Amino acid sequence: MPNLSSDLRPEATLAGQWFDHLRQHSKSRLGVTRASYGEGEQMAHDLMRRIAQDLTLEQRLDAAGNLYLTLPGRDRSLPAIMTGSHLDSVPEGGNYDGAAGVVAGMAMLARWRRAGRQPHRDITVMCVRAEELSWFPAPYIGSRAAFGLLEPEALDNCLRPDTGRTLAQHMADAGFAPDRIRAGEVQLSAERIRCFFELHIEQGPVLVEKAIPVGIVTGIRSNLRYRHCHVTGRYGHAGAEPRESRQDAVLAAAEFVHRLEALWVAHEVAGKDLVCTVGRFHTDADVDTMTKIPGEVWFTLDVRSEDNAVLLALDRALRAMADEIGARRGVRIDLGPYTNALPGPIDRGHRDRLEALARRLGIPAMAMASGAGHDAAVFANRGVPTAMIFVRNEHGSHNPHEAMELDDFAQGLRLLVAAVEEIDAAPTA
Amino acid sequence: MPNLSSDLRPEATLAGQWFDHLRQHSKSRLGVTRASYGEGEQMAHDLMRRIAQDLTLEQRLDAAGNLYLTLPGRDRSLPAIMTGSHLDSVPEGGNYDGAAGVVAGMAMLARWRRAGRQPHRDITVMCVRAEELSWFPAPYIGSRAAFGLLEPEALDNCLRPDTGRTLAQHMADAGFAPDRIRAGEVQLSAERIRCFFELHIEQGPVLVEKAIPVGIVTGIRSNLRYRHCHVTGRYGHAGAEPRESRQDAVLAAAEFVHRLEALWVAHEVAGKDLVCTVGRFHTDADVDTMTKIPGEVWFTLDVRSEDNAVLLALDRALRAMADEIGARRGVRIDLGPYTNALPGPIDRGHRDRLEALARRLGIPAMAMASGAGHDAAVFANRGVPTAMIFVRNEHGSHNPHEAMELDDFAQGLRLLVAAVEEIDAAPTA
Repeated sequence: MPNLSSDLRPEATLAGQWFDHLRQHSKSRLGVTRASYGEGEQMAHDLMRRIAQDLTLEQRLDAAGNLYLTLPGRDRSLPAIMTGSHLDSVPEGGNYDGAAGVVAGMAMLARWRRAGRQPHRDITVMCVRAEELSWFPAPYIGSRAAFGLLEPEALDNCLRPDTGRTLAQHMADAGFAPDRIRAGEVQLSAERIRCFFELHIEQGPVLVEKAIPVGIVTGIRSNLRYRHCHVTGRYGHAGAEPRESRQDAVLAAAEFVHRLEALWVAHEVAGKDLVCTVGRFHTDADVDTMTKIPGEVWFTLDVRSEDNAVLLALDRALRAMADEIGARRGVRIDLGPYTNALPGPIDRGHRDRLEALARRLGIPAMAMASGAGHDAAVFANRGVPTAMIFVRNEHGSHNPHEAMELDDFAQGLRLLVAAVEEIDAAPTA
Repeated sequence: MPNLSSDLRPEATLAGQWFDHLRQHSKSRLGVTRASYGEGEQMAHDLMRRIAQDLTLEQRLDAAGNLYLTLPGRDRSLPAIMTGSHLDSVPEGGNYDGAAGVVAGMAMLARWRRAGRQPHRDITVMCVRAEELSWFPAPYIGSRAAFGLLEPEALDNCLRPDTGRTLAQHMADAGFAPDRIRAGEVQLSAERIRCFFELHIEQGPVLVEKAIPVGIVTGIRSNLRYRHCHVTGRYGHAGAEPRESRQDAVLAAAEFVHRLEALWVAHEVAGKDLVCTVGRFHTDADVDTMTKIPGEVWFTLDVRSEDNAVLLALDRALRAMADEIGARRGVRIDLGPYTNALPGPIDRGHRDRLEALARRLGIPAMAMASGAGHDAAVFANRGVPTAMIFVRNEHGSHNPHEAMELDDFAQGLRLLVAAVEEIDAAPTA
């Protein structure tokens, strides 16, 4: 008898007020700014604590400042159902990236309270710290710290660009305990989690283009990131050097990028999930001129796939291609090291459950990969059965023009509420 | 009886001393720096005036500060034989670009004086001002001003980057008369010039690679320069946006550059002279990140050919290609306006003369196009019969590693001396 999801209008209205509050109190020049371990993020945490107080939820803060807001179940010994997301934003970002997942969790708990019902097991909303890479260049700081997985170097080597201070300093300033995180102390035990659901705005245009409000995530793509691809040729006179003797770094890099795109198309034709992005590309602004053959180029490369094996094979193909182009052109194309974020495997059972519930509730939904990484990937890689719900969102994320409709959010919320109610009602595993 | 060229050892030694003086007095952090209308250029002019005084040459300064040093001929009414080059350098450049041509002219006049001979007609060495574009972004300032051809805007709109002051201000500060140049007053009459020879270091690697000390120029390439090529796509999330909906500016620009190179190869196969350079290429450093689909790219394009018609046809082909790529990819590739420097036609008779003399004197020489522009192009376009001699030079020009061997310079000097002597001995046209 899943019925909490049948009437969520009051909670959708509450969610709209909470979103307004978040926006009003983190407005910046162009959009909203909620720095990791900064003012805006703390404001959002404070709001969630006030809501939790109103709902008489249990509150817990861990050593990294992650906040856990729990509706206690009848049997406290059972692993909890968890949901949540992060409350920081990129600089001059939008209001919904991250926040939508926490607001959805809190709206769900408000619904349980309004119904006067107590769940069988604990339901916990987690407000995750420091997910956005713009502030500290290490992925999933809050959720990895919760599981005792944050590498100690990140605490001392990651500097927030606007303050120049380390992650550890910011954590301590905000009243938390970086030394316990450095020691790898576990704040959250995977064994105590029945499942983790993250609701998040879609960061691409697919749902808008398909005119579908909700996405059910099939997998979180892994990525290989090459921050320092470097092409070394030789500077020369633009008019005086014949083609054959040139060692032109731009021509070499252009061939590499153009052929990378051809490889990508070949993957698609073969049905292999892949996206590729060369986000930065530049000659040396201090040296380059219109009349000089370019001797150096730097570029970045970000490749993602639901299948990490595809990426590792692509890496080998790209390095061979770089060597071949380089040898033929008398330049060196050095892709440099990559970082590899593992894919976040989505639990097949929970994904099927979401699809079935969407059909039953008449929520238009489609299956799709998550191109972006999410805290959910950390839970999934810790062995927690994990699923994600995407909500349609115009203009992408990480910019002031993010535009999620509250009606679409309400559809995602319905699906979350229905799934959690169903899981809670199921016999104990 | 050309014999001045048979013994130039004392003059080659003098030239070596003059080069040393120039280097010692314009040394900068990495190389030499002789700013247009600046200290280093003036120092070089002062040296040439002292040499002229020692050789009792006639001296004339024009309103733009160009210096003319003349060995008077027996018949002053005849058009003069002229040679010379510029005395400025790029910032942190080499010692020989420009200076070699003036030093060669002065060494030649020293040879006439040592022989105690008077030419039939005047022989004039011109020390041209402000040839290097690094200081004021207008081509051939000195030589065009001499012919009354400098556009008045250049005087007021060109700012020297290190001072922020205009060309007119610098000209006035150095004691010259920008108002007369602005009025288009002719400082040098093409009708009074029998021919113009410019000796210059080769700025490419061809002579080094072929192990030949001297080049005889077949033509000065014209160029089309596109300073502001701009690709406009749409920024997006690197992981979340499928390939088909992306409007990726880097992928579009890479295809454009790669296909430009293919067009270039096709021109070579068809025997058409062409070189192409994309010297600058960059995404927007304020906006680009590794994880964002790039929405904008800027690049420059410099294409050169001895045949201006090839360039104009290429421009049409490139614009069509840009439109086709842009339409297919949902981006806009705007090549923007170009500037067109006309080719400098080399006088066939003087070129043949140089080739014949090189053979007769046993100077290893080869015919080659000049990829770079030179003041000689201004003379040629004024209808003055013009020729150029290149001297082998390692590591290209416009950098501190320019390396011309004095022995190679001496070979070029011999050819210049022999040609001028032969022209002077020929019956009056």
